[in-house]
Amino acid sequence: MTTVDDVSGPSRVAGPDEAISAEELQLAARNHGIPLEALRYDVTPAGLHYLLIHYDIPDVDPAAHALTVGGAVDRPLRLDLAALRERPRVTHRVTLECAGNGRALLHPRPVSQPWLVEAVGNAEWTGTPLAPLLREAGLAADALDVVFTGADHGVERGVEQDYQRALPVADALREEVLLAYEMNGAPLLPQHGAPLRLIVPGWYGMAHVKWLRDIRVLTEPFDGYQNAVAYRLRQDADDPGVPVTRIEPRALVRPPGFPDFMSRKRVLRPGPCTVDGRAWSGHAPVTAVEVTFDGGTTWVPATLDEPTGGAWAWRRWQVSWRATPGRHVLGARAVDASGRTQPVEQPWNRGGFANNLVQRVEVVVLAE
Amino acid sequence: MTTVDDVSGPSRVAGPDEAISAEELQLAARNHGIPLEALRYDVTPAGLHYLLIHYDIPDVDPAAHALTVGGAVDRPLRLDLAALRERPRVTHRVTLECAGNGRALLHPRPVSQPWLVEAVGNAEWTGTPLAPLLREAGLAADALDVVFTGADHGVERGVEQDYQRALPVADALREEVLLAYEMNGAPLLPQHGAPLRLIVPGWYGMAHVKWLRDIRVLTEPFDGYQNAVAYRLRQDADDPGVPVTRIEPRALVRPPGFPDFMSRKRVLRPGPCTVDGRAWSGHAPVTAVEVTFDGGTTWVPATLDEPTGGAWAWRRWQVSWRATPGRHVLGARAVDASGRTQPVEQPWNRGGFANNLVQRVEVVVLAE
Repeated sequence: MTTVDDVSGPSRVAGPDEAISAEELQLAARNHGIPLEALRYDVTPAGLHYLLIHYDIPDVDPAAHALTVGGAVDRPLRLDLAALRERPRVTHRVTLECAGNGRALLHPRPVSQPWLVEAVGNAEWTGTPLAPLLREAGLAADALDVVFTGADHGVERGVEQDYQRALPVADALREEVLLAYEMNGAPLLPQHGAPLRLIVPGWYGMAHVKWLRDIRVLTEPFDGYQNAVAYRLRQDADDPGVPVTRIEPRALVRPPGFPDFMSRKRVLRPGPCTVDGRAWSGHAPVTAVEVTFDGGTTWVPATLDEPTGGAWAWRRWQVSWRATPGRHVLGARAVDASGRTQPVEQPWNRGGFANNLVQRVEVVVLAE
Repeated sequence: MTTVDDVSGPSRVAGPDEAISAEELQLAARNHGIPLEALRYDVTPAGLHYLLIHYDIPDVDPAAHALTVGGAVDRPLRLDLAALRERPRVTHRVTLECAGNGRALLHPRPVSQPWLVEAVGNAEWTGTPLAPLLREAGLAADALDVVFTGADHGVERGVEQDYQRALPVADALREEVLLAYEMNGAPLLPQHGAPLRLIVPGWYGMAHVKWLRDIRVLTEPFDGYQNAVAYRLRQDADDPGVPVTRIEPRALVRPPGFPDFMSRKRVLRPGPCTVDGRAWSGHAPVTAVEVTFDGGTTWVPATLDEPTGGAWAWRRWQVSWRATPGRHVLGARAVDASGRTQPVEQPWNRGGFANNLVQRVEVVVLAE
């Protein structure tokens, strides 16, 4: 008898010398990162923002789409897109990063979407705040979790499901949490959750439920797959782990010079230049960025540009460098106001989440 | 002494059991294919069209950008974007496919951008025809090749270069060749060649030069890297090979049902359903599509929808299927009016180009 178990294997960690599998490549071919040169744009243009789509992009008719709000509320609601657009409208610039960013650089490598460092983007999300809607529905006094369900449907580790993620009530009521229907001033694209998605500034991407169709308030903890099984920091398969929530600090270098097609190593002419990039954290504002040109042996402070996008957007940094002929390994690390920074040793866990190990950008500076 | 050779290796073919390398993964993370469910859209929305960018997306200021036309012409030209927009404006719906599509499925595997089958898209390109511009410039009587140069710069196999591709004069003068400044009714996105790119309907993607800044007419054959070295069908490294030009016929199945996250295998409920997809050829119109549900043992004819986009756009096909419980392997093959079709054995060459081997879509139909 054929069942969903016939398409789905258990989670696993690659063997010590195991190269990228055909299944990982298949995911990489569809879920793309930001090309690192696009760190030049403060707001990431359409099509360059990272994408992680668990199942298929669903076929949603915006005209027929409605959001339902139910569960432990006094007044269940149903709002179509027109009704949502009539509500107060706000725009937040928000850096989104996949919780699995950096996974393919871990040793050993958790087998899943094989991100290097590029699963990030910074966009302007426009929509209506969630909290007033929840208050209108009237949360039960003992409400605990708020479950967000998307229109995307698939199987994961043998569990057939609509994509669902819950937030604790206190997080769902944060004033900056949005029901977004526009990205960068245009209607949402299909792959970014059209016609409606959740935006939870500061949290990793798994919380920003796309193709949002239902909100359900629970008076007990949500035990769905994406909260209870998938997005947890565990050391081994038996470890219950802790939930993945906010984005750890990270700085990325915009690779200087020009690349080799195949190796993506960089070529630079010698002389003075400016090296720059972006830095962000979901815990607190970035307060400092340090840059290395020797693979982490020594560090110099970068200058932070003025913030351009509020508390949840990345921030540009820059540093002057006199490029001398030879090979160099560049990297940067961010520090945020909570004191968090990026580790020099990999923060390994079995899902490969929240890995903010410092990037390595190999640069060859040509002879004079 | 450090040179560009320090970033660039020779071309190579993977060993018999060699899995995907870190360099191939790095390319897959930035150059993405169309998610196959997006075959549902006749015109591929922004961000879902495949992308193959040899170097970096360059930083081009549209206001300062100009196209120069020179070489063996009577009247060299210089046109800024405003001047190009004042010229006759046409729109063509064109299917673009990367010449390397299918490469990662070859045995042995040429090591380069590791496409499976998803390096395709179908968009509406708006711009001004190239031929009248060349006639205004006045081609020399002995003009042979027309070289198109982009603003993107990098290294490939030790050769530092701006991306350059030539077309034979007769091909450059085809009336449907466009200088495009819009895609799907909007200004070109940075990753698709903003502010100007060449569109050569029917040819593989390498001909459609992005970030186009110069056109140069030659009276001798162009011997630049992308024509003379890179995009050639060779059996071994010493074979001079033949140029890669027009798109071989291909049909893709839009995978039915819903997927497993990791394996991308499909799950379907039993019963009657419609299976559909798209088919295209750069040589001649598609005249027939056949579909297999048993991995190529038997084939049934599909129905072709009416063409929606002219001679250079893909065409939807569909077929009825009664899905019975168990495992099935779906695929489709296109035939075009020139008599070309898709092979049952891989068309191997050292660059992994023009591989239009039939796709394999694994489907598990659940028990009743």
